[in-house]
Amino acid sequence: MRLSRKSDYALRAVKHMANLPTGKLGSINSVSEAETIPREFLAKILKDLTRSGILVSYQGVTGGYRLAKVPKDVTFLDVIEAIDGPIHLNLCTEDSGCRCEQYKTCQLKAFWENQEVAFKKALGKEHFGKYRKGRSK
Amino acid sequence: MRLSRKSDYALRAVKHMANLPTGKLGSINSVSEAETIPREFLAKILKDLTRSGILVSYQGVTGGYRLAKVPKDVTFLDVIEAIDGPIHLNLCTEDSGCRCEQYKTCQLKAFWENQEVAFKKALGKEHFGKYRKGRSK
Repeated sequence: MRLSRKSDYALRAVKHMANLPTGKLGSINSVSEAETIPREFLAKILKDLTRSGILVSYQGVTGGYRLAKVPKDVTFLDVIEAIDGPIHLNLCTEDSGCRCEQYKTCQLKAFWENQEVAFKKALGKEHFGKYRKGRSK
Repeated sequence: MRLSRKSDYALRAVKHMANLPTGKLGSINSVSEAETIPREFLAKILKDLTRSGILVSYQGVTGGYRLAKVPKDVTFLDVIEAIDGPIHLNLCTEDSGCRCEQYKTCQLKAFWENQEVAFKKALGKEHFGKYRKGRSK
């Protein structure tokens, strides 16, 4: 039940972007070095984050990445789901419906549904405005 | 970030045991059939649960398994940790200490520690006395 390494790196990369001065772009090299994330892995992560609208990418020698929104409008939930897809704490809480054989009679499902709602709520409240060092949110 | 299939089956198996009449044992066959858990996989799970003191096993033709404690004294946390080991929501919250390169400066760690404490508390409060149908807890 652990966050993927990819999502953890993605959170760190976004936290880094949230701390860049306005107008400044983060390059793969600079983020990789500052956040100690393997370069090739980071390249894939930044691509995923761009595809899902969390980052904007700029091509060229002076290119790089920046947040598509202000830090307070980007949450942990946004980033994790952009990387790993919808969060589900158990097979029975997937959107496609429980594929478990005990679906109709399961007594345990409600517990997992409640936990999932609470966890996603916490992730959805955790925005990157909170992680800016001494800057406006 | 999903519960393992093995732990999910283990919860169902323990829930089944919690509903057996006093003195009655659950056999691999009966639990497998009632809870729709593959027999061989269930055998491994029941062994793990016995080794960790959640179940007691009785050998022989009329043998089987029963809970080692009353249902209200067995929690979801007990069962999941017996199967998959200590729960950690991120690499940085492991008991062995964060092995991440950003350990000393990480700003995100506190969030994961708080979430983990809350989640484990919820799992530790969810006992099998709640899942007994019309019997004392």
